[in-house]
Amino acid sequence: MNAPAEKKLFRLVGTRPIRPDGIEKVTGKAIYGPDFVAPNMLQGAILRSPHPHARIRGIDTSKAEVLPGVKAIVTGADFPELDSAMVAGGEAPANIKYMARKCMATDKVVFDGHPVAAVAATSATIAEAAIQLIEVDYEVLPHVIDIEDALRPDAPILHDDLFTQGLPELPTTPSNAAMRVEVRRGDAARALSEAAAVFSGRFTLRPVHQGYIEPHACVASWHADGQAQIWCSTQGHFTVRALTAGILGMEIADIRVVPLEIGGGFGGKTTVYLEPVAVLLSRKAGRPVRLAMKRDDVFRATGPAPGAVIDIRLGAGADGTISGAEVEFKYTGGGFPGAHEVYAGLHCTMSYYNVPDAHIVGWNVLSNIPTVHAYRAPGAPQVNFAVESAMDELARRLGIDPIDIRLRNIARPGDTGGMGMPHGAIGYAETLEAAKAHPHYSAPLGPNQARGVACGSWGNYGGPSTAAVSVAEDGSILVTEGNPDIGGSRASMAIMAAETLGIAYEKVRVVVADTSSIGYSMGTGGSRTTFATGKAVIQAAEAVIAILRERAAKQWNVAAGEVQWGGGEAVHGDRRLSLGQIAAASGTTGGPISAQAAIDPHDYLPGFGVHICDTEVDRETGQVSIVRYTALQDVGRAIHADYVEGQIQGGAVQGIGWALNEAYVYNQAGLLDNPGFLDYRMPVASDMPMIDAVMIEVPNPAHPYGVKGVGETPIVPPLAAVANAVSGAIGIRMCDLPITPDRVYGLLLAAE
Amino acid sequence: MNAPAEKKLFRLVGTRPIRPDGIEKVTGKAIYGPDFVAPNMLQGAILRSPHPHARIRGIDTSKAEVLPGVKAIVTGADFPELDSAMVAGGEAPANIKYMARKCMATDKVVFDGHPVAAVAATSATIAEAAIQLIEVDYEVLPHVIDIEDALRPDAPILHDDLFTQGLPELPTTPSNAAMRVEVRRGDAARALSEAAAVFSGRFTLRPVHQGYIEPHACVASWHADGQAQIWCSTQGHFTVRALTAGILGMEIADIRVVPLEIGGGFGGKTTVYLEPVAVLLSRKAGRPVRLAMKRDDVFRATGPAPGAVIDIRLGAGADGTISGAEVEFKYTGGGFPGAHEVYAGLHCTMSYYNVPDAHIVGWNVLSNIPTVHAYRAPGAPQVNFAVESAMDELARRLGIDPIDIRLRNIARPGDTGGMGMPHGAIGYAETLEAAKAHPHYSAPLGPNQARGVACGSWGNYGGPSTAAVSVAEDGSILVTEGNPDIGGSRASMAIMAAETLGIAYEKVRVVVADTSSIGYSMGTGGSRTTFATGKAVIQAAEAVIAILRERAAKQWNVAAGEVQWGGGEAVHGDRRLSLGQIAAASGTTGGPISAQAAIDPHDYLPGFGVHICDTEVDRETGQVSIVRYTALQDVGRAIHADYVEGQIQGGAVQGIGWALNEAYVYNQAGLLDNPGFLDYRMPVASDMPMIDAVMIEVPNPAHPYGVKGVGETPIVPPLAAVANAVSGAIGIRMCDLPITPDRVYGLLLAAE
Repeated sequence: MNAPAEKKLFRLVGTRPIRPDGIEKVTGKAIYGPDFVAPNMLQGAILRSPHPHARIRGIDTSKAEVLPGVKAIVTGADFPELDSAMVAGGEAPANIKYMARKCMATDKVVFDGHPVAAVAATSATIAEAAIQLIEVDYEVLPHVIDIEDALRPDAPILHDDLFTQGLPELPTTPSNAAMRVEVRRGDAARALSEAAAVFSGRFTLRPVHQGYIEPHACVASWHADGQAQIWCSTQGHFTVRALTAGILGMEIADIRVVPLEIGGGFGGKTTVYLEPVAVLLSRKAGRPVRLAMKRDDVFRATGPAPGAVIDIRLGAGADGTISGAEVEFKYTGGGFPGAHEVYAGLHCTMSYYNVPDAHIVGWNVLSNIPTVHAYRAPGAPQVNFAVESAMDELARRLGIDPIDIRLRNIARPGDTGGMGMPHGAIGYAETLEAAKAHPHYSAPLGPNQARGVACGSWGNYGGPSTAAVSVAEDGSILVTEGNPDIGGSRASMAIMAAETLGIAYEKVRVVVADTSSIGYSMGTGGSRTTFATGKAVIQAAEAVIAILRERAAKQWNVAAGEVQWGGGEAVHGDRRLSLGQIAAASGTTGGPISAQAAIDPHDYLPGFGVHICDTEVDRETGQVSIVRYTALQDVGRAIHADYVEGQIQGGAVQGIGWALNEAYVYNQAGLLDNPGFLDYRMPVASDMPMIDAVMIEVPNPAHPYGVKGVGETPIVPPLAAVANAVSGAIGIRMCDLPITPDRVYGLLLAAE
Repeated sequence: MNAPAEKKLFRLVGTRPIRPDGIEKVTGKAIYGPDFVAPNMLQGAILRSPHPHARIRGIDTSKAEVLPGVKAIVTGADFPELDSAMVAGGEAPANIKYMARKCMATDKVVFDGHPVAAVAATSATIAEAAIQLIEVDYEVLPHVIDIEDALRPDAPILHDDLFTQGLPELPTTPSNAAMRVEVRRGDAARALSEAAAVFSGRFTLRPVHQGYIEPHACVASWHADGQAQIWCSTQGHFTVRALTAGILGMEIADIRVVPLEIGGGFGGKTTVYLEPVAVLLSRKAGRPVRLAMKRDDVFRATGPAPGAVIDIRLGAGADGTISGAEVEFKYTGGGFPGAHEVYAGLHCTMSYYNVPDAHIVGWNVLSNIPTVHAYRAPGAPQVNFAVESAMDELARRLGIDPIDIRLRNIARPGDTGGMGMPHGAIGYAETLEAAKAHPHYSAPLGPNQARGVACGSWGNYGGPSTAAVSVAEDGSILVTEGNPDIGGSRASMAIMAAETLGIAYEKVRVVVADTSSIGYSMGTGGSRTTFATGKAVIQAAEAVIAILRERAAKQWNVAAGEVQWGGGEAVHGDRRLSLGQIAAASGTTGGPISAQAAIDPHDYLPGFGVHICDTEVDRETGQVSIVRYTALQDVGRAIHADYVEGQIQGGAVQGIGWALNEAYVYNQAGLLDNPGFLDYRMPVASDMPMIDAVMIEVPNPAHPYGVKGVGETPIVPPLAAVANAVSGAIGIRMCDLPITPDRVYGLLLAAE
């Protein structure tokens, strides 16, 4: 749903043209990670640990080495010695030593599926046979999976050299608690003791996986002169380049990463698993090597979102004004330190409410599961589930409408939110008002149905992007950028370039260039691409317009300052020269027309969503159905309206999946019990109603077309929206996710 | 051989570092045109005409269509209707209609090997079988091969609608003479009538092939949304893009051409043969399609250099001063008009001598051979052979040393040369003086040996180039450019970037980006790349230095103007920040460090060479051996000295091949009799002495490092140098190339 009045400002922004990569993708012809082939390519396979925690006493590859067709074997011993130097490898600095160990174990395995060796062979069958011939001498160690277990004094310690960071005093004993973070403002304890109503509760969530359809895959080719080329599916090929270079001790410019089409990432493809291994295999074998995960590899050994244990105390006055908050959240970290979700959790706790007195503590807790990784608004949904559940309880206890209590506390322009950050043109109130006015909010409910509402926010990001705009000889336009197209960014970049240049959308083609062909661009993540890379595209297009005006001026023999640009034409008095005419003359007026912008904008603004969810509970089975769902979001301004709505719908469904279905389930042996889409149950189309996405447009004044990030916010509200609805339906506060039928049925049984 | 005094000016320019693509190339691992594979790729084959001249009455593809495995068949009927619109598709405007017909015949075939149909199938075997099942109904027409035959009134006319261009009056009858060009200055006839000595002669040359080792090959992938991707080996992927778009009626930005490594081009890979056909096959088949030539396809159906018939009259005073020249040259054009060699021939006739009275006429004459195409200094070696043979004769008749007579007539700075163009800093005299002083010129000769000397020049070119320089996070450098690396340009670009930035050569990696990833860059040809693209690289590097100074200033909190750059470091008083340190801080000082330059320089200068050749003639067999060869050349300034010497050596050997061995031989039926390296005899290493390349450095003041083009000049002098030596050895003027043993033996026999 567009806000039609605003749309008249623009010719193309906010429309819904056909995406230029659509047909190839829906017909299966686009080349995704697992599709790529290189001439003379070998097939690789990875041997993975069958234990969640074990010391590696030795690895005997001798039998595999002599299997005909085996060309290279790599183990942890083939990786260079690394100190714990930090490199800027993506959305945040990464500890390269742990990154390397995650890709290939050295002395220890710390999760089920941890890679211990890799083989390259002339066929996949031989490679698979060869890894079975590798003998690993494991000393199996006790393991620990759950957060609270991992913090017990007698818990198995994953890393003897790991001491908790962020404590007031340097610890003297190693711990699975890798990191503690804290924010304290005012006197939360006093505020809570004086509050008219206080909700106190503990919320738990399980790790969940991003669930991208396309498994990780890459082809790497080592060049004997010390350079390497990698083709892979990734959200950030510059991140793959930096991490691979760091892990292998190479110079960054020596690695060229070519991005293939990506079949889903959601944050999970902003790191490396296979690429450094494939490069090492290729270096040993002297031929390109392909490595690809199977589905169970993806579940067992890539980075799920953290599970969490969250204790919250939230207090309010009788009018619903929040007075104080105490929150302590513990996030699962997985096998290695370095997860950044605790920072995001800290920043996303109460971030959009005015809370004068707050004390928030977060922990990153290691255990024998794969190292967690970014998943859409990483770290936000977990704490937001607790906060928005608590808000719901306070509203219920104080007899205030759930939207009204939020409107009373929401940050307004000029306010500082819960984290003390000043807020600008963010449509918190506009979105809540729109939700309240939406027909869904006042629609009647059927038997066993209840309505939940929840807010959610994500800070979004800007950051480094490079883009070039070039005019071809016939006036058609090429936009070259460095961000893999996950959610339709080729279309949105083409819209912004065409809008700026004043030409037809179809005249613009957008290419995601490799790391050696365009300047540094941070990965597609943080809801940054349409904002930051879009800004770079617009700046490059504006620079091209300046050149076009100069060229027209040269053709007319007038000063460039006298030439205007409008409607895709240079204008001087009654004279006009179209972009195509200027391009055709470029050979005699100065040569190629091309410009580049390399920028690092930080004037992004957060996104904010309000979700309304109607659930129906089958009291005989405990089954929860979503019967109606409306997601309202301040999107700044939509560039391609379809893909903004698609982001809102996709995020909402992923949040619903987290709320109702999804969870990593480990058995007693510490092995993942559900490493497939049959047992790891994600929502499918038939589980869902149509998600009604409502775009509220409060433009970001710092972006020429008002863009805010939209991709991550929509996964934040659903957990609480669903839980609040179910809590209302059965009269029991749902504190633990997922809300599976057995859990609901059990609670109903216990309550009777 | 370097001029050591000059070299101290630069740290890297003129050195000989290892090329970054060397090992992959010499070990056969680099991906050339025929090596590339695309997922799900079909194999194509082309049916070629067995007749040199025939009308196509019909093509029946029905039997081929039903062959299992055949996925698409294309004939001329599948190409869009084209008018004779001109598009800028490469080094010169190209007539798109003739370009298309060259790729695929429609109503007529005009040379042996002319494509008439193409097939894509699941295997090469099936594709080859399928083309045998295609039935073409030919009406065979009389054919004509040789120039003089093609101009006879009763000659078969190739194109009924073709009338000679460039005549004083519009012709009324079609002709095989496609084009006449003329320059007249002063009164040549009068000058010749008053000359002390006049040489008059006719010289002939056969068409020769560039002889690149790698045959033409490409893979094309049509996308159902109207875009296409092409991977191919080419000297100019932007040319491939423009020509394919023009031929197929597509927008240029809809085609992405990815350059693969190129195994030789020498001008021959500046056009399209396979690419439009492969795109059409892919469009029909819905899968990527590979097309590759076999060796005989290359000889039969790509563009050789023109053969020629040249009549020259050259007169001089008693002191050797040239007073007048009359030259009429006729170049073979092949099956279709459009050859630009006649223009080059016109400009290269007497271009470096002061000749007050001259009359020069050139003709492009069509016949039933493949359309000629550029070959290293296209159009220059032919006329230069006649001119430098005539100079040799005049020197002999007037008793003047061959170098002295040239020094007497050579253009000096400030002079206008034979074509009336003013000459600047060109080392004509310096190179001749160096030749005269070279030990070779005064070395004693053995029995049956003689020495020939000849000059040669090529205008060189500049033209449009785009390049970007990006700083990776660790301070390593990427140079992105649009010129396929034929002669080591990755190395020369890296040298220029590293020299400019003040860093190590090894810190710079150079990538040849695809047409969608870098702005327009004219192909690698015209000896333009190190000059023009080098200039773009230097400008982009200078722009990067400006950014680096700004960033350092920001780190130091001083004005950017106060920060100097030197030795790869920002300098402010006693403070230093290395490129790597500035790069590492870029995330907090403004983001990616990257800059682009799109330029179109035309301040290039010609190259000039003097070759000294000693031959030995075996009077019993007529066999000519090259016993010593020295090639001196004004190279401006060498960037990578090895590759400049390599260009000189390679050009000299190709010229020697043209002089002694190579020729297109057509049989009576008009079919090429020698379409393979066994019968088309190119010089191999064992045929040649070491070519002593002597670089004379007279820097081009318009280039920061003094670059002049070097690649084409060295093929210009050898034809006359060899012929002059043989003429001296046997006392008979060698007017016809190649100087094969049977020809020499025949002349010796006739003379006895």
